Order: sequence, then C-alpha cells, then structure tokens
Amino acid sequence: MSKVIARLAMSLDGYVAGPDSGVEHPLGIGGERLHRWVYDLRAFREAQGMTGGVDNADSRLLADWNARLGAVVMGRHMYLTGEQPWGDNPPFHSPVFVVTHHPRETLHKDGGTTFTFVTEGLEHALDRAREAAGDKDVSLAGGAHLVRQFIRAGLLDELLLHVVPVLACTGTRLFDDLGEKHIEWEKTAVLDSPEVTHIRLRALR
Amino acid sequence: MSKVIARLAMSLDGYVAGPDSGVEHPLGIGGERLHRWVYDLRAFREAQGMTGGVDNADSRLLADWNARLGAVVMGRHMYLTGEQPWGDNPPFHSPVFVVTHHPRETLHKDGGTTFTFVTEGLEHALDRAREAAGDKDVSLAGGAHLVRQFIRAGLLDELLLHVVPVLACTGTRLFDDLGEKHIEWEKTAVLDSPEVTHIRLRALR
Repeated sequence: MSKVIARLAMSLDGYVAGPDSGVEHPLGIGGERLHRWVYDLRAFREAQGMTGGVDNADSRLLADWNARLGAVVMGRHMYLTGEQPWGDNPPFHSPVFVVTHHPRETLHKDGGTTFTFVTEGLEHALDRAREAAGDKDVSLAGGAHLVRQFIRAGLLDELLLHVVPVLACTGTRLFDDLGEKHIEWEKTAVLDSPEVTHIRLRALR
Repeated sequence: MSKVIARLAMSLDGYVAGPDSGVEHPLGIGGERLHRWVYDLRAFREAQGMTGGVDNADSRLLADWNARLGAVVMGRHMYLTGEQPWGDNPPFHSPVFVVTHHPRETLHKDGGTTFTFVTEGLEHALDRAREAAGDKDVSLAGGAHLVRQFIRAGLLDELLLHVVPVLACTGTRLFDDLGEKHIEWEKTAVLDSPEVTHIRLRALR
C-alpha cells in the first residue's frame, strides 16, 4: 500500500510558518526564510514550471520525493492561501484532496493538478488520495494543523524535516497539541548541506 | 577571549526536559529519554567517575566538548534539582557559578567542582566564569530558562543540539520567549549517529 508522507521546512525552534499566515502572506510574515534553500533548486523550479536551477544533493532529494508522489492531501487554510500564488499551473502535478467543510466543484488546473474538496473528513480524504495515488505515495502538503492531525491519528508513515539553522521565534509550530505521550520515530537518513539539514524519519508504532 | 557554549539534548519538537522537573524528577517525567544516547558513552561515564563505556564518534564529540570547558554557569532550578543526584563528585570538574537570588557559601566538592552562588545577575556570573575559565570556554549547564536568557542577551556564542528522533509532546521547550525577530545561526557541523543527530551552531550577530 502507498505510504503517507510529509516534508516540511522547519526552524530550529520548530516553526513551519511565520505569524499572520493568510492570503497576503501565504507562508506567514517572514516565513519565506524557511524556504530560502529551496528556491534555486532545479527540482523545485521544475515543479513550478521553470527551467534551470542548481542540481545538487538537495535538488536530487526533492526530485526523488516528487517522483514518489501520487496524490496530495491538503488543509483548507493552505488551499485558500495558496490558490492565488499557485496560479493556473500549481506545483503539485497530481490529484489534490482538500479537507474542508465547504463543498465545491473539483477544479482542473494545468499540469495535471486537480483540487477535489472533501467534506467527509480526514480519513475519507486519505482514502480518496490513496485510491488516486495507486502504487505511489500520498503526500501531505500541509499546513501544520493537517500534519498534526495525521500524526495524532497515527496515519503519517514518513516525515522529512528540512531543518533550517534559524530561530524563527514566532509563527506556527509544527509539533503542538500532540497529546502527552512520547511519539517515537526511526531516523532513516540525514543529509546535511550548507543551508539546511534534512532529517528523514519513519513512524514507529 | 573564551567562548560561551551550551549543549542540550532536544526532542524533534524542541523539548529539553519532561514535565514536572524538580527534585523528584531532575530531568522532568520521561526526560531521560532525551539522554538515552549518552549514558553508555565512555566520555559521559568518565565525567561521572565511572570507567568503561563505548568509545564512538558521539563519545569523542563529548570528550572534545568537555576538554574545552573551563567553567560553568548554571540556573538555580538546575542546581536545586541536580544537587542530590550529582553527589560528592559532580560531573563538572570545574568551577560552577549558579545564578540565584539566594546568597550561600561556596561549596567545594570532590573532583574539582565548586559551586559559587552569584546573586548579582547573569552577566556578573558570566564575568566570574570567564575569569575562572582562563583560555578555556564557559559552558552553560542549563536549564532551558538560563540558556534562553543568554540567547536573548546575545551572549551565547555556540550551541550544540543533540536532536533525538522523538516527539516529547510535553515538558520544557528550549526555545520559547525569545522575542519576535529571527535569530540566525551558522551551522558549523552536523554529526549523525543512529540515536541522535548533533547540530553545531555558531551565533551570527
């Protein structure tokens, strides 16, 4: 069965978005600092429909990740803040299932991205995404709130943290409200590069 | 001039101690999980007055760190919770300056550890420690509150995080109440081993 995977850029103090994330600041104020390492990578640019860029270990990591991805689950807040900047050719190039309370017609975008709005909850969205992904994996696009829900429900299989050497000090933390008990992970790989440390983890259950 | 350095074991979600840290649970409830990687290391055992142990890259990292250490600054809470378990031969083997509001006579322990209680504040404790350290470095023993105060004051030069692949979910976070602005670090080294990822950082000012 396909795995449920998520990757997030995170500051040393655990923030994945700046404060006041919304339509005006999709990443939160100052949140782009967490993604600085990614913008010049060939694999990132390719997903955005651009050519060129640096083909280094970071880019290959990202390319491998993107190659595994068969479908996406996304939270409503992320969809609403991303809708405009993603434009007509969003960077997902696969079926995206948005967990929301507001029914809406499926949107078909260029480049293979569709947005399907699922009002029957998280697990139903996951079922739909698994079905769409086939042998490939289901990636959680975010935001933090959605990823947390999956962790709490024991539904996240693999997590790739891009740890950026900055203290963001404010914004949205990935790991909050996860209960009271330790949640153990197996560290499966670490790749260090000048601007970021990638830590790959597999859930232990 | 000697540097101000700190090293802390931290969970993926930023906790450095379990909840209810106190005399009964010096590391907080469940806090020993964050230190599991260290207990068998030769360098750790040596500092505790024990022989044997594993001599691997983790142990050498710790030995190098301990060799740099000329004096220690410690918060009052850490002193009070550690006093009993450290016993007659505490693992510091150097002059320790405890930041406190309560004056007390200096204690002379076995193995070169002294505890001097400084009531004139953090910077005065640091001055005393620098003087005692000579060419060596001043290490912040903790706890989190003390390390945060040094970061906020721009007085911490180097930070070594031992990142443990667990979500602690509860307890004391290292990086809280640090203000509103990004604090940038230069990542100077990463050492990965099966149970822990060591990230070495230098403050950028």
